[in-house]
Amino acid sequence: MKYPISPDLVAEKNDQLTPDLQKDYDALGEQLERRGLDIKALIRQAEDFDIAVPSWGTGTGGTRFARFPGEGEPRNIFEKVEDCAVINQMSGCASEISPHFPWDKVDDFSELKAHSSQYGLGWSSVNSNTFQDQPDQECSYKYGSLSHADAAVREQAIAHNLQVIEWGKQLGSKVITVWVGDGSNHPGQQHFQRAFERYLASAKAIYQGLPEDWEMHIEHKMFEPAFYSTVIQDWGSNILAAMETGERCKSLVDLGHHAPNVNIEMIVSRLIQFKKLGGFHFNDSKYGDDDLDSGSLHPYQQFLIFNELVDAEYRKQPGFAPAYMLDQSHNVTDPIESLINSATEVQRSFIKALLVDRKALERYQSDNDAIMASNTLKAAFNTDVSPILAMARKNKGAAIDSLATYRASGYRQQAAKARPDTGGNRSGIV
Amino acid sequence: MKYPISPDLVAEKNDQLTPDLQKDYDALGEQLERRGLDIKALIRQAEDFDIAVPSWGTGTGGTRFARFPGEGEPRNIFEKVEDCAVINQMSGCASEISPHFPWDKVDDFSELKAHSSQYGLGWSSVNSNTFQDQPDQECSYKYGSLSHADAAVREQAIAHNLQVIEWGKQLGSKVITVWVGDGSNHPGQQHFQRAFERYLASAKAIYQGLPEDWEMHIEHKMFEPAFYSTVIQDWGSNILAAMETGERCKSLVDLGHHAPNVNIEMIVSRLIQFKKLGGFHFNDSKYGDDDLDSGSLHPYQQFLIFNELVDAEYRKQPGFAPAYMLDQSHNVTDPIESLINSATEVQRSFIKALLVDRKALERYQSDNDAIMASNTLKAAFNTDVSPILAMARKNKGAAIDSLATYRASGYRQQAAKARPDTGGNRSGIV
Amino acid sequence: MKYPISPDLVAEKNDQLTPDLQKDYDALGEQLERRGLDIKALIRQAEDFDIAVPSWGTGTGGTRFARFPGEGEPRNIFEKVEDCAVINQMSGCASEISPHFPWDKVDDFSELKAHSSQYGLGWSSVNSNTFQDQPDQECSYKYGSLSHADAAVREQAIAHNLQVIEWGKQLGSKVITVWVGDGSNHPGQQHFQRAFERYLASAKAIYQGLPEDWEMHIEHKMFEPAFYSTVIQDWGSNILAAMETGERCKSLVDLGHHAPNVNIEMIVSRLIQFKKLGGFHFNDSKYGDDDLDSGSLHPYQQFLIFNELVDAEYRKQPGFAPAYMLDQSHNVTDPIESLINSATEVQRSFIKALLVDRKALERYQSDNDAIMASNTLKAAFNTDVSPILAMARKNKGAAIDSLATYRASGYRQQAAKARPDTGGNRSGIV
Amino acid sequence: MKYPISPDLVAEKNDQLTPDLQKDYDALGEQLERRGLDIKALIRQAEDFDIAVPSWGTGTGGTRFARFPGEGEPRNIFEKVEDCAVINQMSGCASEISPHFPWDKVDDFSELKAHSSQYGLGWSSVNSNTFQDQPDQECSYKYGSLSHADAAVREQAIAHNLQVIEWGKQLGSKVITVWVGDGSNHPGQQHFQRAFERYLASAKAIYQGLPEDWEMHIEHKMFEPAFYSTVIQDWGSNILAAMETGERCKSLVDLGHHAPNVNIEMIVSRLIQFKKLGGFHFNDSKYGDDDLDSGSLHPYQQFLIFNELVDAEYRKQPGFAPAYMLDQSHNVTDPIESLINSATEVQRSFIKALLVDRKALERYQSDNDAIMASNTLKAAFNTDVSPILAMARKNKGAAIDSLATYRASGYRQQAAKARPDTGGNRSGIV
Repeated sequence: MKYPISPDLVAEKNDQLTPDLQKDYDALGEQLERRGLDIKALIRQAEDFDIAVPSWGTGTGGTRFARFPGEGEPRNIFEKVEDCAVINQMSGCASEISPHFPWDKVDDFSELKAHSSQYGLGWSSVNSNTFQDQPDQECSYKYGSLSHADAAVREQAIAHNLQVIEWGKQLGSKVITVWVGDGSNHPGQQHFQRAFERYLASAKAIYQGLPEDWEMHIEHKMFEPAFYSTVIQDWGSNILAAMETGERCKSLVDLGHHAPNVNIEMIVSRLIQFKKLGGFHFNDSKYGDDDLDSGSLHPYQQFLIFNELVDAEYRKQPGFAPAYMLDQSHNVTDPIESLINSATEVQRSFIKALLVDRKALERYQSDNDAIMASNTLKAAFNTDVSPILAMARKNKGAAIDSLATYRASGYRQQAAKARPDTGGNRSGIV
Repeated sequence: MKYPISPDLVAEKNDQLTPDLQKDYDALGEQLERRGLDIKALIRQAEDFDIAVPSWGTGTGGTRFARFPGEGEPRNIFEKVEDCAVINQMSGCASEISPHFPWDKVDDFSELKAHSSQYGLGWSSVNSNTFQDQPDQECSYKYGSLSHADAAVREQAIAHNLQVIEWGKQLGSKVITVWVGDGSNHPGQQHFQRAFERYLASAKAIYQGLPEDWEMHIEHKMFEPAFYSTVIQDWGSNILAAMETGERCKSLVDLGHHAPNVNIEMIVSRLIQFKKLGGFHFNDSKYGDDDLDSGSLHPYQQFLIFNELVDAEYRKQPGFAPAYMLDQSHNVTDPIESLINSATEVQRSFIKALLVDRKALERYQSDNDAIMASNTLKAAFNTDVSPILAMARKNKGAAIDSLATYRASGYRQQAAKARPDTGGNRSGIV
Repeated sequence: MKYPISPDLVAEKNDQLTPDLQKDYDALGEQLERRGLDIKALIRQAEDFDIAVPSWGTGTGGTRFARFPGEGEPRNIFEKVEDCAVINQMSGCASEISPHFPWDKVDDFSELKAHSSQYGLGWSSVNSNTFQDQPDQECSYKYGSLSHADAAVREQAIAHNLQVIEWGKQLGSKVITVWVGDGSNHPGQQHFQRAFERYLASAKAIYQGLPEDWEMHIEHKMFEPAFYSTVIQDWGSNILAAMETGERCKSLVDLGHHAPNVNIEMIVSRLIQFKKLGGFHFNDSKYGDDDLDSGSLHPYQQFLIFNELVDAEYRKQPGFAPAYMLDQSHNVTDPIESLINSATEVQRSFIKALLVDRKALERYQSDNDAIMASNTLKAAFNTDVSPILAMARKNKGAAIDSLATYRASGYRQQAAKARPDTGGNRSGIV
Repeated sequence: MKYPISPDLVAEKNDQLTPDLQKDYDALGEQLERRGLDIKALIRQAEDFDIAVPSWGTGTGGTRFARFPGEGEPRNIFEKVEDCAVINQMSGCASEISPHFPWDKVDDFSELKAHSSQYGLGWSSVNSNTFQDQPDQECSYKYGSLSHADAAVREQAIAHNLQVIEWGKQLGSKVITVWVGDGSNHPGQQHFQRAFERYLASAKAIYQGLPEDWEMHIEHKMFEPAFYSTVIQDWGSNILAAMETGERCKSLVDLGHHAPNVNIEMIVSRLIQFKKLGGFHFNDSKYGDDDLDSGSLHPYQQFLIFNELVDAEYRKQPGFAPAYMLDQSHNVTDPIESLINSATEVQRSFIKALLVDRKALERYQSDNDAIMASNTLKAAFNTDVSPILAMARKNKGAAIDSLATYRASGYRQQAAKARPDTGGNRSGIV
C-alpha cells in the first residue's frame, strides 16, 4: 500500500487531537445512549461509508467567462489518481474514482488499474462525453448527439458509449452514466417528440451492449448547455426513459439539475418507489448547476435526502442500491480540499440520518403530528456528529483534522513543483 | 334558444363594425393567400373552436388576504349558467360549463340541464372537491384526502368522487378532473412513498367506478395549499399515477402549476407522446398559481403550447383529444369580461398555431437551421389574426367587439339589481 | 405575575430533565472552553434574547382554498394575549406581542395593557391593515390603498395608519409596520411610476404623524395579493422609499417575500450598511410567502442571516437595532406549539452565530481562504447549542422541554372548552 | 461609403419583394389611420431607431462545457467591424459597435476608427474586463477586482478601467460599462459590507477619471461567475452604487441578469423615475443568463419594457436617454444572422410600443379598468408591424428580407475562405 502523504505525519497529528476528540466522543456516546442509540454501531456505519470522486474534479473548474488555474493541477489521469489517493487518505471515505472518457483514456488500462490499486483505490461509474467535439471526431455534436436529427451522429455517439463501457470493464466499473447536452436554444429548433424518440432508440442501442452485471444511469438536467429545451430535462423524462430502456437502466440525481424550489428529496422518494434510483451526483447550488461544495449551502436539504435513503434501507425497499458520487466544480478552492471536505459533509448527512427515531417518526406521521415529526428529524440533524466522523477517520488511519493535516503535508506545494503550469484553458469561452 | 343579451343589440353593434372588419379581413386573406393559406379554412376552424368555462370563475376570486366582491355576482349554479351564456354569446367559443361539486350540487339535475340547454350550453368535466370540509362531513381533509393516513378519510374522499361521477352522468359529462390539496407543510410530516401509495390505491378505486366512455384526469400542482410537499407535485408524479391507474386515466396541465422557468410546452409534448394528455386548465401566471387571464402575460408561451397541439393533430398522433378549459381567478375585473377575453385569447393562439408552415419547419429542424425554425414560428405568431377571430364571431352571431357589446348591454347592472349583495366571504383567511 | 400554566408543573418537568441536561451542558461548556468560548456568557445572551409574537399567529391560518380551524382558537385579543403568555412562559424568549389593527382594536386600551402586563407581556410593532375592506369603511381597497389612483382612498388609508399609531401609543409600541397589498394583476393596469409616487407621498404623510421616538418600517413583498406587479416589490423599492420618507423610516425583511434563489443574508447586509434595517418577520418558505415555521426548512439560511446581525453588533455598526418578530401561518399545527418552537429556532440561530470565530473569519476573508471561511461558519452551525437554549429556559422559569410541558398542561383542551367553536371562516375564497 | 454586400444585390432582392410589401404596408396604413395613427410618422421613428452591436457577439459563443465554432469567424476587431457592417447593412438599425477591452485593443485606434467609418459605423459604450486574467497581468482577478480584499488588485482594476476610457475617447465613445464578476462561492468567503465598500471606493476612483461628457454604467447580475453572492447582484445594489458614485453614474439593465419571475419592466420604471437608467443589454433567457436572441422567447416582456421607455419619452421624463445594445451569445446560429434578426426584434418592440393609445391607457388606469388597460397594450402588441420595419429598411437601403438577402450574398462562405479556422477554444472549461 502506497500513501501520498506520510502516515507518520497523519498519526502524529491525530495523536495531538485524540485526547480532546475522545472527550467529545465520550460525551456524545453517553448522550446517544440515553437516546437509545449505540455510538459504536454508528462508527461502523461511518467507516463503511464511501463516496466516489470524479476524476475531473481534481482540476480547477471555471465558468464560460474564465478559469483561474491553481498550482500543481494534475495533468493526466495518473496524477489525478494521486490526488484522489490524498482525498481518500485524508477523508477515509472516498476510495473510488469515477473516470470520464475520452478525457481519462489511456493506452494501457491495466497500467492505470495497477497505479490506482497500489493506493487502494477502485473505479466507480464511467462517464461518456458526447457534449464536446474531440479533435479527430468525424461528426460534430454541435446540434446534439444521442438525439441528433442525423443518424450518423447518433451512431457515432452510441459507438462512443459502447467504447466507454469496454474501457470501464478493464477498470472494473459496473455502471455507465450517460449525460448528454442535447437540446435547443430556440423554440422550433427541435421537434420535442421526435428528438426524444431518437434519444430512446439510442439509449436502447447502448443498453443492448451493456454487460449483464452493469447498470446504465441516465442523468437529467434542466438547462445548460441548452437554454430553451433539454432532451432529458427533469426526473419525469428521466424515469420514462429509464422505464423504456430496460430494467437495469436507472435515473441519476444531480442536486443542481432541477428547477428552482423543487423538492428534491421527494423526487428521490419517487425514484426509490419505482425502483429506478441509480445514484447521485452530490454538490450544492443556489442558482443553477452551480456545482458548489456538497452541503455548503443547504445542509438540511442534504440531510433530508439521506433521510429518504436511510429510510429505504430501513424499510428494506427492494432494488435499492444507489451509487454515490461527488460532482463539483472548484473555482476558488484547492480541489483536493473541497473534495475532502465534501466527502465528509455527505458522510455527515448519512450519519445524522441514522439518528432519526424512525419508529417515533412513523407514529407522528400516522397521527398527523406535524410538529413532532418535524422535530424528530431536527433532533437528528441538530446533533453534532463530528466526533463520530472524526473517530471513524482515526480508526481507518485517515486524518482527524483532514484539512489541517493535508495542509501540513505540503502536498500541494510539492505538486506545484512536480507539475509545472502547462497553460491550460484560462480564457473563457465568450 | 334563449339569449341573455338581445341578439338585436349584438347585430346592431356588429353592423357598425363590419365595414372596417371586412377591409382588415380582405387584406389579411390576400396576404395569407400569398403565404399559401386559405382564410376560409381558418375561419371554419375558428368557428369550431370551443373552450369550457369553469362555473366558479363567474364569481370574483380573491386571495387568503381578502376578497373584494363585484356587483351582481351569481349566487347559485343557475345564475352562473346565465353568466356562462353571456360569455358564450359574446365570444362564440365557450359553449360548455365545467361544474364543481359540491358547490354546484342541485336537487334536480334535469332541471339544471334544461336550464343550460335553453341557452345552448352543455357540460364539460366535473370537478370533485376534497380540499375543503363541508358542513355535514364526517371526516376532515385537514391532513389530506385520497392520500390521508386514515382509511376512513380516504374512503370518504373516494365516495365523494364516485358521487361526483354520478352527478356528472346526469349532466352529460364524460370526464372527471381530480385535484387534491394533499401534501405537507413540514419535513417529516408525511412519508412520501406511503402517501403516494395510498393516493394510487384511491385513484384506482375511483377508476373502478368510472363509466366506460369516461376519462379521469389527474391534475398536478407544485404547491399551495401544501407548502413543503404535494402528493402530485409535477407532471412526473402525474403521468406515473395516470399510468398506474389505467388507460383512460390521463394528466391535466394547468399552466400555473409548475416550478419557475419550466418548459411547459415540452411537458405537453411528453404527455402527447405517451398518450396521456387529458386536457388543460388555461390561465396565465408570473409567480405561482396566480390564475391570471389566459395569455395576458405570456402570449408566446400559450402559442408554443398550441403549436404542440396543432402539430399533434397534423401528425395524427394516436389518442390525441385533449379537453380545453379556462381556470382563472378574477380578483380585479368583471369575471364575465375576463372569461370572454380569455376564451378569445386561447382561440387566438390556436389560430396562430394553424398558420405555422409545418413542412418548412420540419425541413429547418432536419437541417438544424435554428434561426429559420424560430422565425417560422414567429411568422405565424406575428400575424394579427384578429380579423379571423372577429369574423368567426360575427358568423356565429357572437359580438365582433365582445367587451364593448357586453358593456353596452347593461347585463352587469341588471344582475346587480337582480342579485343583491349577499355578503359572502370578504375577510380573507389569515 | 400571572401564569397561564402552573409554574409547579413546569418546575416538576424541569426537575426531571435537569440531570441529563446538566451533563450535556457541562460537556458542551468544556468543549466551548477549548474553543475559547465562555458558555456562561452565551447563556446570558440566550436569556436576553427576545422575539415578538404576532397576535394573529395564535389562530389557525389557511389558504385561499380552505381553512381548517383548530380547537380552542382565541376569539379576541384578550384570549390571544393569554396564548402569547403561554408561548412566553414555555419558551422564555417571547415577551412581546405585535398587534394588528383593526383586528385587535378594543374600546379600552388601558384594560388591554393591564391584561397583558399581568402576564409580563409588552407590545411590539403595531401593524396597519389597508389590504382588506372593513364593514363600515367608506372607500374600498380593491384597487389599492396608499398608492390608489383616487386621493380619497389614499387619505382614508393614511388616516387609518395615523389612527393605528395612536392606538399603539396607548399600548407602548414604538414602531409601526406598514405593509400594503397595492399592485396590479394586468400589464397596463397601473402606471408604475405614478403609483410609486403616490405611495411615497402617502408614506411621507404618515411619517409626518410619527412620534419622535417611533420608527416606521416598510415591508416589501414580491407578489400576493397582486400577481403582476406590487408597489413595494423588493428591497430596492423598499430602501428607496425609506430613504425618501425620512431617517426613522426603515425597511423590514420578511424571509418569504423574495424572488426564488435570492441571497437574503446579503440584502440584510446592504440594509445594515445603509442604516435602513428596521427589523424582521421571521418564517420559512419553499415556494412563495409560505409562512412556515422559522428554520423548519432552511436552518442554515437563518443562521447566515444571524451571522450578519451578530457581525453588525460585533463591528458596532452605527444605527443598528433591528426588531425581531415571528410572522407565520399555522395551517396544520397547534399555533401555540409552532410559535414556541419557532421562537426557540430563531434563538438557536442567534446563539450559533455567536460561536463564529470572527477574528479567524476575517483573516480567512483577507486571505481569500474560501474553504476555511466556510468551515468557520460551519463549525459554529454544527455545534449543538440545545443545552444552552434549554438551560437559559430553565434559568428563566421556562420549560426545558417546551412542547412536552405545554402538552402535559392540558392548556389546549381547556381552551377548547372555554372557547367554543364560533364557526369562523372555513370555506376558502375561491 | 463601403458596403460588405453588394448594394445591387440588395436592391434586386428588394425590388422583387416590394410589390407585396406595398400591399401589406398600404393595408396597415389604412388600418392605423382608422386607429388615429400615422404610418409615415412610425416609419420615420423606425428609420431613426438604432441599437449597438457588441463586437464579441460576432463570434460563436459557448458554455463552460464546449464551444462549437462556426465557419469564417472574425479573428480580430477589424474583421468584427466588417461583420458589424453586414449587420447594419441588412438591418438598417445597427450603426454602432460596442467594443470590449483588452479583446479589441489595437495599436492604432485611428486606423480602427477609419476602418469603421468607411462602413458608416460608429462606436458605442466601451466595456472593461476585470473578470479574466490577461497573460501579462500582475495581479489575478481570481478572487475579485474592484472589490478585491487586496488594494493592489483593486488599483490594477481601476487603472484598467481608466485605460479603457482613454481608448474609448479615441474611438469617440461616451460611455463606459462596468461589469465585474466579483463575488463568492462560499458563505463566509467574502464580507458583504466590506466588499461593497471597496467596490464603491473603486467605482468613485473610476468616476474621478470620467470625462465630463461621459457616463459610467454599472451592470448588475444575480450570479455567474460567482455562485453564492455577487457584489452588484441586483438593481437595488446597482442603483445605490450609482447614487453613491455620482450623477453621471447610472444603472444598466441586462434582461438575463435577474432572479426568476422578477418584473423587469417595473425595475426599468424605477430606474427611469430616479433618473438612473443608463441603458440596456438586450437578449432573452429562460433559466439564467442564457444570452439568447432578443425577443425569441418573451416578445411580450420586451414589448412591455419598450412600453415603459416610450412612455417616459411621451411624458418627457427628465434625464431620460438610455443606450440600447444587444448582448447575446450565439451558440447554434450564424452570429451575423442572430444579430440582424435581434436588432429587428428590438426595433419591432419599439414600434409596437409607439402604437399604444396612451391617452386611453391613462384613462383606464384612473378608472381601474384593468381589462381595458391590458387590452390597450395588447391592441398595440397584436398589430403586425412587419410592413413598417420592412419599409424602413427599404428606405434606408437595407434588406426587406434581411436573412434571405444575407444568405444570398454568400458572405459567410467568403469569410470562411478568407478567415481559415484558427482552432480557437473548443474544449470547454470543466
